Amino acid sequence: MIPGPVMVAPRVLQAMARPMISHRSGEFGIIFDDCRTLLKEFFETKNQIAILTGSGTLGMDAAVGGLIGKDDTLVTVTNGKFGERFTEIGERYGKVVPLAFDWGKPFDLSRVEEALEAGAKAIAMVHNETSVGLVNPAKEIGNLAKKHGAVFIVDGISSIGGNEFKTDEWGVDIAITGSQKCLAMPPGLAIVSVSDKAISALNAKSAGYYSDLKAHLKSASKSPAQTPFTPAVSLFFALQEALHMAAEEGFVARRDRVAKLAGAVRAAASALGIEFFPEINEHSGYSNTVTAMKIPKGMTDDKLRGGMKKQGVVVSGGQETIKGKIFRIGTMGVCSEADVMKTLETLEQIMAKEGALSKTGSGVEAASKVLRP
Amino acid sequence: MIPGPVMVAPRVLQAMARPMISHRSGEFGIIFDDCRTLLKEFFETKNQIAILTGSGTLGMDAAVGGLIGKDDTLVTVTNGKFGERFTEIGERYGKVVPLAFDWGKPFDLSRVEEALEAGAKAIAMVHNETSVGLVNPAKEIGNLAKKHGAVFIVDGISSIGGNEFKTDEWGVDIAITGSQKCLAMPPGLAIVSVSDKAISALNAKSAGYYSDLKAHLKSASKSPAQTPFTPAVSLFFALQEALHMAAEEGFVARRDRVAKLAGAVRAAASALGIEFFPEINEHSGYSNTVTAMKIPKGMTDDKLRGGMKKQGVVVSGGQETIKGKIFRIGTMGVCSEADVMKTLETLEQIMAKEGALSKTGSGVEAASKVLRP
Repeated sequence: MIPGPVMVAPRVLQAMARPMISHRSGEFGIIFDDCRTLLKEFFETKNQIAILTGSGTLGMDAAVGGLIGKDDTLVTVTNGKFGERFTEIGERYGKVVPLAFDWGKPFDLSRVEEALEAGAKAIAMVHNETSVGLVNPAKEIGNLAKKHGAVFIVDGISSIGGNEFKTDEWGVDIAITGSQKCLAMPPGLAIVSVSDKAISALNAKSAGYYSDLKAHLKSASKSPAQTPFTPAVSLFFALQEALHMAAEEGFVARRDRVAKLAGAVRAAASALGIEFFPEINEHSGYSNTVTAMKIPKGMTDDKLRGGMKKQGVVVSGGQETIKGKIFRIGTMGVCSEADVMKTLETLEQIMAKEGALSKTGSGVEAASKVLRP
Repeated sequence: MIPGPVMVAPRVLQAMARPMISHRSGEFGIIFDDCRTLLKEFFETKNQIAILTGSGTLGMDAAVGGLIGKDDTLVTVTNGKFGERFTEIGERYGKVVPLAFDWGKPFDLSRVEEALEAGAKAIAMVHNETSVGLVNPAKEIGNLAKKHGAVFIVDGISSIGGNEFKTDEWGVDIAITGSQKCLAMPPGLAIVSVSDKAISALNAKSAGYYSDLKAHLKSASKSPAQTPFTPAVSLFFALQEALHMAAEEGFVARRDRVAKLAGAVRAAASALGIEFFPEINEHSGYSNTVTAMKIPKGMTDDKLRGGMKKQGVVVSGGQETIKGKIFRIGTMGVCSEADVMKTLETLEQIMAKEGALSKTGSGVEAASKVLRP
């Protein structure tokens, strides 16, 4: 029940066991094209799609490294670990104006506008900040980016396919996701959508050679479609299968299901007196893919997560400065109602065992009401 | 029968179908450590090993990007497509002194020494130039690099595990391989060994963020061992299985077997009057992992490779300027005697059909003598 790498359905795992094919063959090109067509629907975009072999961070690296050279300015808006990664990447290649809010606190949009008014080539943010369970205002910042002519980069790694994410409607010029989140397949592929505006803004030479978005888009437009460097062919088999599986359920239906599961987790937490870690306001909200909660009073991270793990349920802890202070339950991909109920029931048992809950049942009951209203 | 991605054994394919585990878990750490221990034996090195999710090119990018900044000089010694890639990568990050020999022609070592005498931070070469089927003199250039204090980078992607490759004995500071060649697993992992000399020479900030070797080595030294960014977990399952499979056969036994298979291909080619593409001298040799031959007189690439493909045998053509002029037969990984014999028999049939061979059998017979002397 961690927020990625998520559980993977047997049919997707088995797809990886298919015999190898040449990555320059027509057969590979057909798979690649099929994936990109479905991914456009998944991203709600008409933009071009590049698929890079690597983690989601490679996608962030490709976006920033393509746009930001030594004399270019990137505004980063952050309230968690992955937002701060944009700042680190930007600082490696060019100038960064970091708008760093406390982890788990909403953005102040007036400060974002001020930073853009001062002039910036691009602005980057994380939509669903996995480290704190917060959904940040992509639509609002998209409007500001458009108004000030900045290229808008959004890390949608733990968001796209889980939370509502409207690439084109929100004006997201570069949207990024990873394979091991809402697509419910193993990690190893970074998927990046790139608008014409972003393509025009790419520097002649990207910062990185392997992560060169122009090279990826050029190879993808060949016939048969291909990648500039040897791709992880088996992961493309898995991607195709995972996309078909998601399309069979329906991309929107999957998102709705995930929203319901997260709603059940939140209802249970409230019933159990567990506080949420992030603060929300009118522009930001709780994540439907990962719920971040404070460790209940009288318990430790070790007792809570360690106790649950012994019962066969793995949830995540906090990272860096909030390590030991929070725990996180992921609800994305092929996560089921049964998975959620088992997790919540185990959480209650462990809390009761440690004296942090006098009577079990209220969390599961509250969750049940959300799942079967 | 292409020189990678190669055929993959069912047990390695099936390893990828294992359920997902967390990449920060002790379970992953054990797999990662096991792989690195076996890889040291595979590379014949005591150096540290980094495993990056990406193609072999990412390994080249990490090596050059870690060492070569704007004011640093890289000497590249090239005689094929992949050598030239080192030049391209180097030019993106710093200064390059390219020693470009004609594709398939041996290096002139006196020119290498001259370039090193003029001063260079690093020198890069491809050991087994896949594009032309030539093995370049790593030992000799290693001696020159040592003499002149340059960091020695060798692309061993299609070589390590197929041709003799002595990382430590030859003084290779950074050796690179890819998963889809002699390891006989699917593509998607770049494996890099890094000497203490290379570590000391790494710049404070690498050119790329995702490809930062320092970050990779730092994470690998943690307990449990991990990667800085989410790795392709399924490919690590495959890597472990592929390494165990190779270790069961014996790394040296596998190399000897591959040498015999390549010897059979070369014997058949000679018997059929087919010319080899590369020129060799006392410091360079024919590759045991890929044999590059000129298209026989009276035939076209299309008729030769197209005809063979119709019979179910896929061999590679030439790349870039030698496209249509050569064809290449790969013999690496789990390639068998039966695979080679079927390939040669098919080649004879197609040549005979196109009038380029009066009587079939001599190639297969010559190959047979090599395989069963």
